[in-house]
Amino acid sequence: MQKVKKPGLVTDLWPHIRLMRMSGMWILEFYEEPVGMKRFLHIIYAMCTTFLLLFQYGFLLAYVIIDSFTGDQMASTTITLLFFTHGVTKYIYLAFRTKYFYRALRAWNMMNSHPLFAESNARHRTTSLMRTRKLLVIIGIGTLATVFCWASVTFVGDSVRPYHDPLNPNETVLIEVPRLMFGAHYIWDPNDGMAYVFTFLYQLYWVLLTLVHCNLLDVIFCSFAIFACEQLKHLKEIMRPLMELSAALDSVVPNAGNLFRVSSADSNIPLIANQEDDVDMRGSFLYSNSPDYNGYESRILNRQSFNPNGLTKKQELMVRSAIKYWVERHKHVVKYVTNIGDFYGTALLLHMLTSTVTLTLLAYQATKIDGFNLFAVYVISYLFYSLTQVFVFCIHGNELIEESSSVMEAAYSCHWYDGSEEAKTFIQIVCQQCQKSLSVSGAKFFTVSLDLFASVLGAVVTYFMVLIQLK
Amino acid sequence: MQKVKKPGLVTDLWPHIRLMRMSGMWILEFYEEPVGMKRFLHIIYAMCTTFLLLFQYGFLLAYVIIDSFTGDQMASTTITLLFFTHGVTKYIYLAFRTKYFYRALRAWNMMNSHPLFAESNARHRTTSLMRTRKLLVIIGIGTLATVFCWASVTFVGDSVRPYHDPLNPNETVLIEVPRLMFGAHYIWDPNDGMAYVFTFLYQLYWVLLTLVHCNLLDVIFCSFAIFACEQLKHLKEIMRPLMELSAALDSVVPNAGNLFRVSSADSNIPLIANQEDDVDMRGSFLYSNSPDYNGYESRILNRQSFNPNGLTKKQELMVRSAIKYWVERHKHVVKYVTNIGDFYGTALLLHMLTSTVTLTLLAYQATKIDGFNLFAVYVISYLFYSLTQVFVFCIHGNELIEESSSVMEAAYSCHWYDGSEEAKTFIQIVCQQCQKSLSVSGAKFFTVSLDLFASVLGAVVTYFMVLIQLK
Amino acid sequence: MQKVKKPGLVTDLWPHIRLMRMSGMWILEFYEEPVGMKRFLHIIYAMCTTFLLLFQYGFLLAYVIIDSFTGDQMASTTITLLFFTHGVTKYIYLAFRTKYFYRALRAWNMMNSHPLFAESNARHRTTSLMRTRKLLVIIGIGTLATVFCWASVTFVGDSVRPYHDPLNPNETVLIEVPRLMFGAHYIWDPNDGMAYVFTFLYQLYWVLLTLVHCNLLDVIFCSFAIFACEQLKHLKEIMRPLMELSAALDSVVPNAGNLFRVSSADSNIPLIANQEDDVDMRGSFLYSNSPDYNGYESRILNRQSFNPNGLTKKQELMVRSAIKYWVERHKHVVKYVTNIGDFYGTALLLHMLTSTVTLTLLAYQATKIDGFNLFAVYVISYLFYSLTQVFVFCIHGNELIEESSSVMEAAYSCHWYDGSEEAKTFIQIVCQQCQKSLSVSGAKFFTVSLDLFASVLGAVVTYFMVLIQLK
Amino acid sequence: MQKVKKPGLVTDLWPHIRLMRMSGMWILEFYEEPVGMKRFLHIIYAMCTTFLLLFQYGFLLAYVIIDSFTGDQMASTTITLLFFTHGVTKYIYLAFRTKYFYRALRAWNMMNSHPLFAESNARHRTTSLMRTRKLLVIIGIGTLATVFCWASVTFVGDSVRPYHDPLNPNETVLIEVPRLMFGAHYIWDPNDGMAYVFTFLYQLYWVLLTLVHCNLLDVIFCSFAIFACEQLKHLKEIMRPLMELSAALDSVVPNAGNLFRVSSADSNIPLIANQEDDVDMRGSFLYSNSPDYNGYESRILNRQSFNPNGLTKKQELMVRSAIKYWVERHKHVVKYVTNIGDFYGTALLLHMLTSTVTLTLLAYQATKIDGFNLFAVYVISYLFYSLTQVFVFCIHGNELIEESSSVMEAAYSCHWYDGSEEAKTFIQIVCQQCQKSLSVSGAKFFTVSLDLFASVLGAVVTYFMVLIQLK
Repeated sequence: MQKVKKPGLVTDLWPHIRLMRMSGMWILEFYEEPVGMKRFLHIIYAMCTTFLLLFQYGFLLAYVIIDSFTGDQMASTTITLLFFTHGVTKYIYLAFRTKYFYRALRAWNMMNSHPLFAESNARHRTTSLMRTRKLLVIIGIGTLATVFCWASVTFVGDSVRPYHDPLNPNETVLIEVPRLMFGAHYIWDPNDGMAYVFTFLYQLYWVLLTLVHCNLLDVIFCSFAIFACEQLKHLKEIMRPLMELSAALDSVVPNAGNLFRVSSADSNIPLIANQEDDVDMRGSFLYSNSPDYNGYESRILNRQSFNPNGLTKKQELMVRSAIKYWVERHKHVVKYVTNIGDFYGTALLLHMLTSTVTLTLLAYQATKIDGFNLFAVYVISYLFYSLTQVFVFCIHGNELIEESSSVMEAAYSCHWYDGSEEAKTFIQIVCQQCQKSLSVSGAKFFTVSLDLFASVLGAVVTYFMVLIQLK
Repeated sequence: MQKVKKPGLVTDLWPHIRLMRMSGMWILEFYEEPVGMKRFLHIIYAMCTTFLLLFQYGFLLAYVIIDSFTGDQMASTTITLLFFTHGVTKYIYLAFRTKYFYRALRAWNMMNSHPLFAESNARHRTTSLMRTRKLLVIIGIGTLATVFCWASVTFVGDSVRPYHDPLNPNETVLIEVPRLMFGAHYIWDPNDGMAYVFTFLYQLYWVLLTLVHCNLLDVIFCSFAIFACEQLKHLKEIMRPLMELSAALDSVVPNAGNLFRVSSADSNIPLIANQEDDVDMRGSFLYSNSPDYNGYESRILNRQSFNPNGLTKKQELMVRSAIKYWVERHKHVVKYVTNIGDFYGTALLLHMLTSTVTLTLLAYQATKIDGFNLFAVYVISYLFYSLTQVFVFCIHGNELIEESSSVMEAAYSCHWYDGSEEAKTFIQIVCQQCQKSLSVSGAKFFTVSLDLFASVLGAVVTYFMVLIQLK
Repeated sequence: MQKVKKPGLVTDLWPHIRLMRMSGMWILEFYEEPVGMKRFLHIIYAMCTTFLLLFQYGFLLAYVIIDSFTGDQMASTTITLLFFTHGVTKYIYLAFRTKYFYRALRAWNMMNSHPLFAESNARHRTTSLMRTRKLLVIIGIGTLATVFCWASVTFVGDSVRPYHDPLNPNETVLIEVPRLMFGAHYIWDPNDGMAYVFTFLYQLYWVLLTLVHCNLLDVIFCSFAIFACEQLKHLKEIMRPLMELSAALDSVVPNAGNLFRVSSADSNIPLIANQEDDVDMRGSFLYSNSPDYNGYESRILNRQSFNPNGLTKKQELMVRSAIKYWVERHKHVVKYVTNIGDFYGTALLLHMLTSTVTLTLLAYQATKIDGFNLFAVYVISYLFYSLTQVFVFCIHGNELIEESSSVMEAAYSCHWYDGSEEAKTFIQIVCQQCQKSLSVSGAKFFTVSLDLFASVLGAVVTYFMVLIQLK
Repeated sequence: MQKVKKPGLVTDLWPHIRLMRMSGMWILEFYEEPVGMKRFLHIIYAMCTTFLLLFQYGFLLAYVIIDSFTGDQMASTTITLLFFTHGVTKYIYLAFRTKYFYRALRAWNMMNSHPLFAESNARHRTTSLMRTRKLLVIIGIGTLATVFCWASVTFVGDSVRPYHDPLNPNETVLIEVPRLMFGAHYIWDPNDGMAYVFTFLYQLYWVLLTLVHCNLLDVIFCSFAIFACEQLKHLKEIMRPLMELSAALDSVVPNAGNLFRVSSADSNIPLIANQEDDVDMRGSFLYSNSPDYNGYESRILNRQSFNPNGLTKKQELMVRSAIKYWVERHKHVVKYVTNIGDFYGTALLLHMLTSTVTLTLLAYQATKIDGFNLFAVYVISYLFYSLTQVFVFCIHGNELIEESSSVMEAAYSCHWYDGSEEAKTFIQIVCQQCQKSLSVSGAKFFTVSLDLFASVLGAVVTYFMVLIQLK
């Protein structure tokens, strides 16, 4: 069960990816060699999962259409249906969009670092790893608890439901129904002994799987967002030493040599700046377009630059490459966030559409609560669960917006007035770019942020208030 | 039937313009010589069309006012009326705004290109041509299918309508009505044999024409937007080679000469940069204000510029003209989008006003659906058609906004930190301009974007929900 | 009755100010010498007007409170009351805010022009004069027509109103009421012959006066906005010659001398640039802070500037002063718009508050229209008049926003890439400032723009729809 | 009772802090030495206060749940409960967030000033002191008046309340209740003589305390905002002399020496610029990062700067430090506003949530007003009080937004076109930063501004209108 070493995000998100594969999703890559057989087995496994998922979903859909007689029954069964729709749509969605998933994962493969900022980079990567693991564990526990509660509550209370005899529409008979997790129109009779056990286990499996699918994908999306946020924090952190280095190039700064240790001040990494192996440095921290690099070097050599702090050419080179590192990393984050949006934007739109209808129906159901009973618990649990789902990705989308727009403040907080004209222009262009914050949009229809959550919540409350008042 | 060679957009949109002329619109220009007779015939044709259109519209209006007794009847006939109002208003609108139409068409006439970026320009022009043709075909097929379905559905179901005897208002008699595409208050009796056939054909012609008018103009608007988007893509694409060229001017770049082939790397166009015919170049790619050009040249000559890459004066000149080309082209797109707004903004406002009322009435009708019958099909078709119309121009307006605001990201993605101070200032001013995205507004009241569509959809759904709940 | 020559806006808006004074407003300045007696007489006149206005307003208020028995009556008399509230509040508002009025008027007193741009300045001033006069005439005619119609309609139809006997609340008696323009609770009996005539004339005077007050102030506000817009257009127009002049300073431009005639190309003003009287120029076109000016001159003298086009020192001086002129004028417009907001913002807030309640009530009344009768005409006239009022200031506020934000586009449209670094920095700072458009806010609660009008209209329509549906 | 000298904001807000401590809040710092005993006594006092507060709150909560039989009663008692919830939540909130409170207070401790701008700084500090004191007095008087009115109104009118016998639900008996300030479900019988007096005094104490807690914290928040606003005004004021100083460095300005007195022109502070004690200056006005400072000095010494106005090195040094002072102070304000948000954002969110529910219920109650009676007075007082609370912090939050965004205008209003390139870059970066205005957000859900107040007011009015219409 050894972990496969994959570059970049694949390694960092390996537990997520394994769980996704174990839950039967159509993730056909990231196998260690030899791939052939494993891949084939996984295809068969995914096909079975798909079949079982859709089959049960069909039974549920049939139940909503065929077995719901009154508007109230229709409302409650529709809520159940929509609740599971999240998982099913996201499962199918991923199957058709794995390409975008792989692309977003691979976006961080070439995460070369700069020797001066390697420590900060590593630290933020560790933080993001910790945060994603923590999120996975919390959501995982929440999901399992939900499934457990659902299964338990099945055996609480009476197990009857009203039945409208189509011949005597005015008469309602309460018929006994089997104790299942949710009503469904099976093609077999689930009342029978063995069939009942089988049906119950099938439902348990299905509930677990749909919830896991839905939440795993949300966790993956949030993890992507967390990685982007941590990278932005990294960029904000190194902005200040960057400016100090830049200032060191054209003004006398006492102990300028120390600056090259600034960014790793609270760690014990030895001084990197005076290393002799220049060639190695070139290869390791530069984004691989060597012509530009040569351009830099040549310009510096031509310039006969008067360097007031007596920095070596290599140090000067390193300073100039640091600015380049910053910009390239920032561009990379911009592109990466676009990739996240491409991968998950439409899924978020579908989620929001489903949630809107669910919440509207739940607000309607909530007006019928007349005390603290099973019905009330059901309605409030559904409400809480649905709102939590939306809240989880909204809070991460919002963090992305906040972090990306606070890059401008970080740039402004540097000692830019001491910097060279070049550094000031750098600050200006970065500020201009940061006027527009990075964000993930739901297929261009909305932006994932706390504003979205507030407006969803506000709409539900307004609607509920109007309904209450109309009663 | 040979095509007339017209400069710029007229050639590109020639199929659209011919269709517009064939449908009887007041497009009196773009005739090959001799113009006189053709123009006169077209005036007569357009006058007949106008007369037939307005006449039938009057009958329909009379029907709504005179023959609608109940609120429900009023609602459904008003929907039909409003449905055709789009076509009629747009037809009349164009007749009075041809000046703006010609201006928008002519905005691209002087599409001179720059030798370095000619390939990219040509490619994007081809793409836009393909996209506009595809859109025309899709919308054309959709329109014809709609007319065919409408005509077919006339012969389905009973052909009776309730008639309220003004003397006995409480009694409703079902009277037989002729099988026409829609009810109208004719000054002749459409029940009669020949009159019936004539009336039916007149209605068929009218339905076809109004739909064609409405959709053709929307397609023209979308085509304009597509052209602007492709130009913006072109500008984004050439931003990177532009910066590399700029960097080549004041730093040593290995193989700088190759850069002049960069932008046409994936094509087989021979090296243009070292061409001898400098005079020709001047004439072909510069926006014709020669004083500025001379200014450039003189400045370069005076400067005794130390060019580290040994570029020829001509190459240097070409690089400087490239930046100028970029800015002038970008300004041109900005102006062109303003022209599009001038041409079609008010029509969009009228469309949205009409659509809002239609959709409100349709939401009201939708609450009365009690099963899967002809009425339901009617209502849902109307809803779908109306929303699709709005969606089509919203998606194109949104693309314009997205493309124009992503120019900033493209500028940021270049290797601007290697560029000269001049290039950085260029990047800064362009970024500043792109903070405000280009957009088409509906007579300043709204912006054509997916947000608009989402808010329209949201309003309809909210309204529908409230109505459902009130029932 | 000769016109007094006052500097700046006072002269331009003299007809407005005279009308305001004639209508009894508390404008106690702008008298020619000797002021004493005229001022005293005006105070007496204004006091009488105030007394008559408030007296009648009190009668109307008493009528709403005392004589309205049913909700419907209350609604209709409240609408009348609110309708006149605009005029009364604005009259009192001005009395307490004349200081801000004078300040906004005086903001343009020091409108020194620059010799190169004097022609453009004069042209735009003329345009703004024409536009304000036209607006005054149109609104004046509209106001008089409204008063005439109101007076005429008094003699149409029956003159009875339902009277609820407080003793028999279930019985409604129709009692005859005098034919007055609106019901009011007088302390005298208006049925009597002479008293009736007097009352009718009093009402006529009052209706005329309140409408005139309200509309005159709105016209003044719109005129202020028009002046600002025309100045912004002036600034946009001179941006291009300014950049060309700037480019002429550090690059060889053929026929550079001609540039100094560029801005007055389509007029016959003789060449100003080579004038000998340098001293005069200093005094006439510079904002009077001479230290800065000296700084300019000295810097230029010290620099031994190599001027490639052989411009004289005076010409160079003029070019540099032109940029200064542009910035100072732009700053001035910014400050002037703030003054407008200080003067009229709160009045707009009061207007919008009153209008919102009026429109809500009118939407409620509109649902009770059951045919084309006097009641329908009343309601629709009120609606139309109220919406027009709001529309008039919204369209002018919107023009201000549009013009101010399009300064950026004008700056971008110049040939800035040819300009000096200094000119580019100028463009950048101007663009940055123009990211935030100038606008007049209603006491910081809303911005006067077409968006505001659209939202007002939308709210009324929504409200009306809901009411219709509830019926 | 001598005041303790504390640095920065603690001294300025000392009266507020003393009042907070006297009202039993958990402010355990800012004691003069020796701290131990006083601190211990304060902990005991705060614990008693907490106990008394929560005890009474529990009685009130019990009353709402147990003793409310009808929906109307429920509504009115819930309003009372929510009214006091503000105070209780804020009290508890502060207890857990004192860390953030201390941090916001300490943010201004290091308020070193610059010799050239010391006068302006001192003036604005005095203004903010005066404004905070005035606000404290006004709110204090308002709070006491509210408590007095509440206590007085207890003895007005009948003291009965409807009682629904659970056995005969259709019969309502009016039972006499003790004359208390609000109904509560005590565990003792408050009808009895001594118990009644005790209960009344307890309620009086409780009402006073909750209102004082709530309002004191709001006043503290507003005071923080006022300090930030005054600092921004200070920065805007010194922008102009700063630019003039900057211009003096590289162009000949007559009487340049006078500029160093510019900023203190209307005061009698003697000329500081030529002071000999350079060392003292270094210590007093520079933000203590001496390396940068040395960098400055060295650069200036190396430069052999040609200074056209013959300024001494010290003066030049001072000018350069002035820009630095401006930027550091501005950054400081940015950070300080973030601190304010961290301290009070969540409390504002809780306030708004509570207020929204309160206002919704009040709008519902307001529809039941049928005349001018005690009930109407209650409802309108509650409405007025709740709206005033929200208005007070919205107006201060709005001032912050306005002041921070008008820094850009102040920068634009300077004579920047005369400044050096360095000064222009300074202006540009500052403008860019100011595009995004400083604001306090309610836990990222909303921004505290007049827009928020307008939307709250709008929602209440809309809701009220709909309810009225439904009746």
